[in-house]
Amino acid sequence: MLTLAGCLARRQALWKALPDSLEWVLIADPRHVLYLSNFLVQPLSFSGGERAWLWLERSGKATLLGDNFALRSRSSDPFVDDEVMVKWYDHKHSVINRDHALLEATKSIADKLFGRPGAVEAEWLPLGAFEQLGLDHESHSVKREAGDGKGKGGPADLGTILRRLRRQKHPDEIAILKKCMAAGAAGQARAREFVTPGVSELEIYREVQAAAITAAGMPALVYGDFRACTPDVPKAGGLPTGYRVREGDFFVLDYSVVLNGYRSDFTNAIAVGGANDEQKRLFAITQAAMSAGEASLKAGRAAREVFAAVEGPIREAGLADRFAHHAGHGIGLAHPEPPILVPESIDTLLAGDVITIEPGLYVPGIGGIRIEHNYLITETGYERLSQHEIVL
Amino acid sequence: MLTLAGCLARRQALWKALPDSLEWVLIADPRHVLYLSNFLVQPLSFSGGERAWLWLERSGKATLLGDNFALRSRSSDPFVDDEVMVKWYDHKHSVINRDHALLEATKSIADKLFGRPGAVEAEWLPLGAFEQLGLDHESHSVKREAGDGKGKGGPADLGTILRRLRRQKHPDEIAILKKCMAAGAAGQARAREFVTPGVSELEIYREVQAAAITAAGMPALVYGDFRACTPDVPKAGGLPTGYRVREGDFFVLDYSVVLNGYRSDFTNAIAVGGANDEQKRLFAITQAAMSAGEASLKAGRAAREVFAAVEGPIREAGLADRFAHHAGHGIGLAHPEPPILVPESIDTLLAGDVITIEPGLYVPGIGGIRIEHNYLITETGYERLSQHEIVL
Repeated sequence: MLTLAGCLARRQALWKALPDSLEWVLIADPRHVLYLSNFLVQPLSFSGGERAWLWLERSGKATLLGDNFALRSRSSDPFVDDEVMVKWYDHKHSVINRDHALLEATKSIADKLFGRPGAVEAEWLPLGAFEQLGLDHESHSVKREAGDGKGKGGPADLGTILRRLRRQKHPDEIAILKKCMAAGAAGQARAREFVTPGVSELEIYREVQAAAITAAGMPALVYGDFRACTPDVPKAGGLPTGYRVREGDFFVLDYSVVLNGYRSDFTNAIAVGGANDEQKRLFAITQAAMSAGEASLKAGRAAREVFAAVEGPIREAGLADRFAHHAGHGIGLAHPEPPILVPESIDTLLAGDVITIEPGLYVPGIGGIRIEHNYLITETGYERLSQHEIVL
Repeated sequence: MLTLAGCLARRQALWKALPDSLEWVLIADPRHVLYLSNFLVQPLSFSGGERAWLWLERSGKATLLGDNFALRSRSSDPFVDDEVMVKWYDHKHSVINRDHALLEATKSIADKLFGRPGAVEAEWLPLGAFEQLGLDHESHSVKREAGDGKGKGGPADLGTILRRLRRQKHPDEIAILKKCMAAGAAGQARAREFVTPGVSELEIYREVQAAAITAAGMPALVYGDFRACTPDVPKAGGLPTGYRVREGDFFVLDYSVVLNGYRSDFTNAIAVGGANDEQKRLFAITQAAMSAGEASLKAGRAAREVFAAVEGPIREAGLADRFAHHAGHGIGLAHPEPPILVPESIDTLLAGDVITIEPGLYVPGIGGIRIEHNYLITETGYERLSQHEIVL
């Protein structure tokens, strides 16, 4: 669901970030293969977890390498010029170790790399694949002084360069993220209808997932926190249990819908059986914190300043020690991603970052609440991408 | 959900299959880390797709290596003696490239490997991790004459040895597979109630998924073929679309429920709006094919003989050319796995194999049908593990 124009723009940005001397790169992190080619092994398929490599040449050529079943399990058509597809299974013969089919595909490009400087993605390309290439060990990873992503000078490598590029989302990526958020918002709306005293966390998950899938028009991964945050245990997280929610609980619905490898991440808290005064007070404080955070958003802003802005109304209410996590973080192909909105952050917001703001309060005797929206950072401020209703 | 006893037995079997000279192995395929330690990054979590390594020593010691967030995203408690957990994110500071936290964890064991012969899982351990170990390149992958899994002599490596061991399921693995199948059977039962002319494939998926999750008592991955196999397009596969099923269609429900990395895989076909005579005839033939296949199951049987048995009734009915796929295959941690039940198979059934039998017929003008059960192979025959009802 990424576009050809987007993939080409990202490849161009990668070549620009790499030393001029490099003539090729071999990409192995599945997220980066997707980012640059739109190829993803459909996770809801028999090939979930299998891999393919993307070989890019400075000439512009892109080649996908993999076994026939993994390449067939694509979520949508990749934007590549060539495919090296090794037949692993044909419904007629026994199979070899499937990984070895991928190694065989890798070996088939070895001759074409000979004598040409290039780089492999060493964090993901397995040793066995590297051995197939017959390359000298030292010369084939990108090492150069380019900062380490924390503002300090140090060696950067292909994976780190790609992670840095990933922060500034392209239009096709934002389009997918909006689709994730629309699906997630449908789930949030369904939860507001469905959550009443006596229903279980797992039942809520099931309803939310069904609504999200219906809105997306396709199966999708739905994960996150689907837990009651009660006066006794105000901070709970993770997948749903069989617990049946009770009047007085907050149900914190903090979840992601993953489509084509991209994910949203947003939250609402539902006061089971209606909100009492203490719950209303906590909700009003998190709303004020979110508004204060929003007002601070802008390219160039220090991430720690956004944290301080979100924390402001919480601190004023005397509850700073009840806000025990980040104020937000980047999202996209992983979770969390930079920038990280925390007190000691050394990150700075960039135009194109997609981030969360998620103030939360966990107060024994009352319960736990968290609310969250997703934002695209712009030069002048932000665009709120998530559209779910945050109400108590 | 694997057991300590099971993990220890599998480690013991691995050491037995390895050359005596090896003192340690470093496992990197997430399936093998799970198989040997019960550690799996919960795929429905923010860490889905992240990795950890398992370092095993012949002394019996097992050590898990990873970043704090990946290790925290475990699906259940691992059976290891030690953890090397590198702090990647603490909600206070910015983050480095997450992969580098894993490389740092890897580096921390380098001193302990020095001068001790061992092997890395070269199909999965990334070059960057291998470089952290400071090992000599040639000496650290297992190469020995042990057959290549196709019955011919050739080099075997750590991954291939593990794949061979994986065929013979241990009791804890069979217990998980039965749980997958019970959840899947609930989905099959729900589909039989729900499928009527006019409902969409996606709606059926949604209902099946909800029923499977309810039966499992936890979120799970549900994937497979959720497609109408119509008189016009008798063979369709893959995830559901918005197509609304019509009277006269077969709806082929061939799917897996994945729990803790293990998966079932079974099928029923529903005649939308009731079966006509032609559909009944195809169904009877596939039933006869399944029975013939079952009668041939036994440890020591050649996989191609099982194929021939399944194909028998189909051939007698003059429809051999309408049965265009395997008669079945192994399942467990991947899909498909050996043994492969196909005409040219060189595999032989082993006691402990868990396999499918899945005859199908795809006839233009009538439609497509496929039925499937899962079986544990025993010395004397088989135990059918899947319990869904196959009816028309």
